Order: sequence, then C-alpha cells, then structure tokens
Amino acid sequence: MTAKILLLPGDGLGPEVVAEAEKVLAALRDRHGLDVSWEYGLIGGAGYDAHGEPLPAVTLEKARGADAILLGAVGGPKYDTLPKDKRPERGLLGIRAALGLYANLRPALLYKELAGASSLKPELVAGLDILIVRELTGGIYFGKRSSAVVENYSVGSHTVAQARVASDTEAYSDFEIERIVRTAFEAARLRNKKLCSVDKANVLESSQLWREVVLEVAKDYPDVEVSHLYVDNAAMQLVRAPKQFDVIVTNNIFGDILSDIAAQLTGSIGMLPSASMNAQGQGLYEPIHGSAPDIAGRGIANPLATLLSLAMLLRYSLKRGDLADKLEQAVQQVLASGLRTGDIAAPGEAKVGTQAMGDAVIAR
Amino acid sequence: MTAKILLLPGDGLGPEVVAEAEKVLAALRDRHGLDVSWEYGLIGGAGYDAHGEPLPAVTLEKARGADAILLGAVGGPKYDTLPKDKRPERGLLGIRAALGLYANLRPALLYKELAGASSLKPELVAGLDILIVRELTGGIYFGKRSSAVVENYSVGSHTVAQARVASDTEAYSDFEIERIVRTAFEAARLRNKKLCSVDKANVLESSQLWREVVLEVAKDYPDVEVSHLYVDNAAMQLVRAPKQFDVIVTNNIFGDILSDIAAQLTGSIGMLPSASMNAQGQGLYEPIHGSAPDIAGRGIANPLATLLSLAMLLRYSLKRGDLADKLEQAVQQVLASGLRTGDIAAPGEAKVGTQAMGDAVIAR
Ligand SMILES: CC(C)[C@H](C(=O)O)[C@@H](O)C(=O)O
Ligand SMILES: CC(C)[C@H](C(=O)O)[C@@H](O)C(=O)O
Repeated sequence: MTAKILLLPGDGLGPEVVAEAEKVLAALRDRHGLDVSWEYGLIGGAGYDAHGEPLPAVTLEKARGADAILLGAVGGPKYDTLPKDKRPERGLLGIRAALGLYANLRPALLYKELAGASSLKPELVAGLDILIVRELTGGIYFGKRSSAVVENYSVGSHTVAQARVASDTEAYSDFEIERIVRTAFEAARLRNKKLCSVDKANVLESSQLWREVVLEVAKDYPDVEVSHLYVDNAAMQLVRAPKQFDVIVTNNIFGDILSDIAAQLTGSIGMLPSASMNAQGQGLYEPIHGSAPDIAGRGIANPLATLLSLAMLLRYSLKRGDLADKLEQAVQQVLASGLRTGDIAAPGEAKVGTQAMGDAVIAR
Repeated sequence: MTAKILLLPGDGLGPEVVAEAEKVLAALRDRHGLDVSWEYGLIGGAGYDAHGEPLPAVTLEKARGADAILLGAVGGPKYDTLPKDKRPERGLLGIRAALGLYANLRPALLYKELAGASSLKPELVAGLDILIVRELTGGIYFGKRSSAVVENYSVGSHTVAQARVASDTEAYSDFEIERIVRTAFEAARLRNKKLCSVDKANVLESSQLWREVVLEVAKDYPDVEVSHLYVDNAAMQLVRAPKQFDVIVTNNIFGDILSDIAAQLTGSIGMLPSASMNAQGQGLYEPIHGSAPDIAGRGIANPLATLLSLAMLLRYSLKRGDLADKLEQAVQQVLASGLRTGDIAAPGEAKVGTQAMGDAVIAR
C-alpha cells in the first residue's frame, strides 16, 4: 500500500527546509522504489492567514488520513499579537492533542564534525548520544486552567481585597504515565539499557504517581537499569556530565525544558530532529529549531534537521529502517565532506545554502 | 538592639559547615563589635529524630523570634522512606511558608580562581555574575493537590475504566507576582539594570498573568531593560551564552530548575549562598549545596557557601553591608591564596578540611 505523507511547512524557514525534504522523498521514490505519495497542508501562521485558524479543519482531516506528517516550524513576530487561541503554537498543540501524539522522542546527538560548536568542554560532550522521551499530550499543557478576579484572596497570613488569579493544572493518570514510560523502556532496550526518570516527587503529587508507575513498569524490564532524578538535579547533571545519560523519560513541561538543554549541549540545534507518535504508530516529525524568522526566506537555513526528521519518519512510521539508515549516513557523509550551512559553520569555514545542502545529501 | 540569629544546622554536612559560621559570628562579635546573639534549633531529619517532625513547633517559635536564620542543609538516605509529610524537605518548605519567605535570591558567581571547574568553555563563563530571583512561597509548590481513583477516566478519545489520577495546581495572584517582580527590579537597579522574566506564556494561563504583571511593574522602572523568555529557551540560553543575563526573575518551579543550572555553570556548588526573604526583611540564609550524605561527618565539606550565606545575612537582615563586604573579601583572599577543599580542588591541588578553611577565613 502506498504510504501517505502530509507535508506541513508552516511558517518562517519551514517552507524552505520542507522543500528539501520533498526533494529527498522524490529521490527515494524514484531511485529506491519507496512506495509513497504526499500532499501539502497549512498550519500555524500559514493556516491562520488562509483560513483564520492555526489548525484549519481541512489540515486536520488530511492529517488523520496520513500515515505520517512532516512539519517545518510554526510562529513568527507577525502573529505575536493574535489572541491566544489563534496563535501559531495552538496549531501545533492542537494537532498533538487531536492525533493523540503522546510520545515525543528527541535525540540529542553530537556529530564529531561539529564538536566544537558545543558550549561545553569537548571532553564532556564527545560522543554524546542522549534520547529524551517526553510525554506530549498530558500534564500542565492540557490541564484545567482558569483566570479570575477573586475578592478577599489570602496569600499566607495576608488578605488581598481583590486579586487577579490565574491557574493551570498538572494532572496525570497512571494510564498516561505507563504508556510513555513503556515507550521509554523499549527505546532504552534498543540502546544502552539505561533509563533515567525525571520528576519532582519530593514536592508534587503528580510526580509521586509518576515515580510509582515507573517502579511498577520497571519490573517488566529487568534488563534496563533505572534511576530517578529530581528535575532540578537532572538539569544540573545534564550540564555537568551529560554522558551519564542514555534515555531520559519525563512529563510534558519538564521534557520541554530538558530536551532544549540537551539540544543545546550538542551546539547544533539545526541538526536535531524529533518524532511525536501516537498509539497507532502514526507520527508527526519535525526539526526542533523553530521558525527562525530572522533568517527565513534567504535560502540559508539548515535543512539537515528536517532531513533527519524524515529519516525518523521512514524508520518509525514507514518501517523503512534501511532507507532511514541510508539517509542518516548521507547526512553524516555530507558533514564529513565539510559542507556547512551558516548555523554550523565554524568561523572562517565556507558556507553553502539550503538547496545546495539538500542536493548534496541526495547526491550521496 | 542585639540582633538575634537562629542557627539551624539540619542534616548531613549541615552541622559541620554551620559550626564554621558560628566561629565567624563569634569573631565578628568579639573583634568587630557586631551586636549579635544566637541560638540553635532543629530542622529536617534532625527535627524528626528529636521531635517526630521535620519542623518542630519549638523551632518555628524560635524562627519567628529571630531576626535572621542560617540553615545548613536538610535530608539524607535515612529519611527517604518516611511518609511525605515527615520528610526533611517538608521542614524547609514549612518554614518558607510559615515565615512567608517569598523572595529567594540565588547569585551564581564564578570565582576566577575556580574558572576551570565549570563544564562550559572558559570564555563563555569568565566573569559570570547572574542573580536568579525565584518566587518561593507560591505556584505549584503550594497549590491545591489531589490524588484519587477515578472511574471512566478519559484520555483523549480513549476511556479508561479505572485510573489513578494525581494533580497539582500552579496558581498565582497578581499580588504575589508583583511583589517578587519588584524585588527583582530593585535588585537589577543595584546591578547591571537588566532583568529577564522567564515564563511559559505561550502555554500557561498563570504565565500570561505573570507576563502582564511584569509589563505593568516595568513602567515604574524605566531605567531597567526588561526582556521575556520562555522557560525552555531560557534554559537553553543559560547553557549557550550565560553572560547575556544579569537578573532573572521567575516562578517557584522554573526558578528551582534555572537556579540549579546557573549554579552548575559556575562549577562550584560548594561556593554558592542563597537568601530567602519575607516582607519584613527577615531572612533565611542557606548554602545551595544540600546535605551531601556521602561526605558528611568527615570534616572535608566546603564551608564557604555557608560563610557567604552569612555574608548575605549580614547585608540583608542585619544591614551590615560593611561586614558582609569584609567577609566576602576574606573568602576571595583565601581562594586567591590557594586554599581548596576537596570539591573545588583541581586534580593535584592540595586540599584542606572544613575547619582549616573556616579558620583561614577568620584569619583574614
Ligand atoms: C511552541 C511550544 C508550544 C512547544 C512546546 O512547548 O511544546 C515547543 O517549545 C516544543 O517544545 O515543541
Ligand atoms: C528540597 C527541595 C524541596 C527544594 C526545592 O525544590 O525548593 C530545593 O531543591 C531547593 O531548591 O531549595
């Protein structure tokens, strides 16, 4: 059966980098017999511009019918003053929720050719290879929220006659925790068999449940070494000695923070892909770098994170690990050959544009 | 009037490092005419051992009567299996709440003598001097929490017959935000006049209120340059280029994470003090390093973070900035003279113990 892919370029540099992915898809179809078809959809600011919504109904319908989705990026200064429910991010949060994409996989891999780009000392990051597994459809991102004016509001022993009060709820069920934790254990099994679960169980009720469930699920994975860290310590350890980690599993908000730290450790945000999967194996794949309005439209963006996201798509949703390997090797070779876009060029190194980089990957 | 200080050694290495602070206090009284008296109290595991409570009533009573409190550390493996409300951390959270210590000041300062200890490249951290202002008595640390078994619980389109569900609430009032933001603006005025407010306003209702209040309060401080970052980006920026920051203000949970990252950037957790103040200028001062059960009782702990916490106590609660300066200079000189405890000794450097370090500071 022909696999159906939805391309969602989104905003900023999204269209440029997704265009390179489309070229690679065409090459895989024409030269490697990949049985695939694709269509385009609008999301984020682009969705709002065309349909008044960051996640137009027609896009969601296409997404539901697709085997996998490749997204560029959403957001831009032009949309910053929109009401919250029209903001580009809402398109991204909306599609995550609507498709139930609960398992966010964020590898942080340091390419030896780019080791100098890390802000950490080289010996601390050489060979760094961490996978952050972030819960993506629960917790404080999707919990009950409120905003109200309250009379006689107490703060400690002090009472305020009138206060504006806003709140968000971090809620997790054992069901949601168990499925993401299983994803993480399975991933750890295929890697170095070490899993670190991150919570704030010394303070939060939801973290206590998190930790209990991890301890229960761990019984099914005696071959995986499990540890637990509080989130403050985990953030610290990532900066102190990141190579102690293999797979990290955590909730939505802690995962948001820790995966960005881990990404930064590699020094090359322009190189990092991500996958967000649901229970049916359907996935949304996207580079983690964001829309970068400052360099968008100039043909200088780094398409490699998007191509590596496409490799994850091939591996996880299309079950074509063989082609994923090929694509990842091509990226590696292109780096080894010295080709650099501006974001990963060391001072003095020659730079190539988005298209030349895409073409070079196809050529390998 | 004689200033009254409460010493709360707590657990682990707490008693050793607080003993050095007591020696310094005695020297300040005897040689510099500081009008001060002090007594001891029990908190954390030590409180539990003696009174069955991590914050015994007698300790809280002493705390209320003190002008300032100096705390060592709480916690240890011995207490890890206690029920949550008896755990040492509860003593710390309890005293913060009971005294309304809402303003947590955490400086992250890199001593040039210890520059090599950072995991970041030297040029990125040389001269690093950041102040994190963390809200300490609100947010998800003290919000409504629940834990229940729920029938027919929905997760997206899926319904679970029975689920364990736990939740925590992140709630903030404009009153609580305003007072901590003002603290941060005042601190920025005395430093490099740059304030970065960190939130997750693109997702959280409480963060939107946070941002609104910061924008309102900013009008009273036109001389301070204000910026806003989402917490994921802030964590990333701290690792990428920490020197872009002067003062950072944020909520309780984000502050917990970001202040530990900032501390780690200096590479010398054993050197960092903190202050937690209430509206009356009463403060609790403590080193950020924790109880370190692995090295406790061996006379090798670094007392400098505790002595620097005492310097903050002199400056903020006793209004003796002159003596605080003297103490900080003495610490600086001791470092310059090459004295090192194990935690800050570079490989091959000679090490001194806790008491010798305390004596050396007193000698200057
Ligand atoms: C854009 C934003 C809502 C999003 C998030 O916080 O999840 C982003 O930071 C991410 O990590 O994918
Ligand atoms: C011990 C713990 C409850 C505490 C906190 O999270 O506030 C600690 O991490 C801190 O930062 O002082």
